Amino acid sequence: MNGRLGAPRHRKPYDAEALLDIAVHVFNERGYDGTSMDDIARAAGITKASIYYHVSGKEELLERGIHRALDALFSVLDEPAACSGSAQGRLRHVLQRSVAIMSARLPEVALLLRVRGNTPVERWALEQRRTFTRCIAALVQAAIDEGSLRSDVEAGLVARLLFGTVNSIVEWYRPEGRLNPEYIASAIEALVFDGLVPLARVG
Amino acid sequence: MNGRLGAPRHRKPYDAEALLDIAVHVFNERGYDGTSMDDIARAAGITKASIYYHVSGKEELLERGIHRALDALFSVLDEPAACSGSAQGRLRHVLQRSVAIMSARLPEVALLLRVRGNTPVERWALEQRRTFTRCIAALVQAAIDEGSLRSDVEAGLVARLLFGTVNSIVEWYRPEGRLNPEYIASAIEALVFDGLVPLARVG
Repeated sequence: MNGRLGAPRHRKPYDAEALLDIAVHVFNERGYDGTSMDDIARAAGITKASIYYHVSGKEELLERGIHRALDALFSVLDEPAACSGSAQGRLRHVLQRSVAIMSARLPEVALLLRVRGNTPVERWALEQRRTFTRCIAALVQAAIDEGSLRSDVEAGLVARLLFGTVNSIVEWYRPEGRLNPEYIASAIEALVFDGLVPLARVG
Repeated sequence: MNGRLGAPRHRKPYDAEALLDIAVHVFNERGYDGTSMDDIARAAGITKASIYYHVSGKEELLERGIHRALDALFSVLDEPAACSGSAQGRLRHVLQRSVAIMSARLPEVALLLRVRGNTPVERWALEQRRTFTRCIAALVQAAIDEGSLRSDVEAGLVARLLFGTVNSIVEWYRPEGRLNPEYIASAIEALVFDGLVPLARVG
């Protein structure tokens, strides 16, 4: 209750969240399988014992890192604009907000998208990704049903391709770069919904 | 010259190509950084010494695996239909053929798309990927210039998003699955060029 008053005046060099930032960075750099607790300790400049003070091990760091990404992404689905209005409008909202979250939580989302499934936490992460894709597919299906989306490509494939486009952000987006997330989100929305061929192509 | 005649009647359990198949599989399963020569030897059921008979080490296996993917992808750009006709037509051809190659060379393309840049070979692979994207961007720009593609999103971003969609195949495509590569390629082409919104939306 008195956390702020009771906190030490000199903050420890690493609290659990700051340590997690570093672990996520090292996982992305070396791959989860290629990362040892020694690597994380070295990157953080602390002993392994200090890390074990905060977490039970490497897999807990992975789980917490992935939780950050999943919590942010799934919370989009609960936003008012994702829950009311036309299905196409909801899908547009989820798309825009997903781009915003991916650019804001780039390291954690990259980590989520690169898991391989060799450990229970990775398999849980893959299952969560499948759940998210199913939610998107349901939204796509609702938009097809209301007649606002083409019906000749099945909803599940549309959902996967849609998030193939969105997820590619983690491969090339640089926060210090020329393109801002709003521009990228608008470009993706325009291309996804209206396509590459100019709309006014007659005459 | 007389390789076939001179070959031993009993083929060795692993020639260099079959060994490479196994190495690519292990790299994809454990990540390149997380894979040791011991892992590859164990998966192949042979000794490390037998592997060194074929290659100088782990990095050469990575390089050869990535070469398979790059050779296949870049060869698309030299196909007649990628070199003549309208720019939009050429782009459509490259898109279709890239989907075909990715589904046929799934493990090698997955390997190419998951390199991190920690070694000279990985950095070379990333540079080759950037070169490929620049070729696609040039094709997109040519299509914009001929007036067959919308001009409000810049060619470089279109190229990256386009191949974000295509590359996502390695995440979810399963050769034994329900969707065949031709259907996937048609769906991607339809979505990318015409968008999700039905074309006949008036009346």
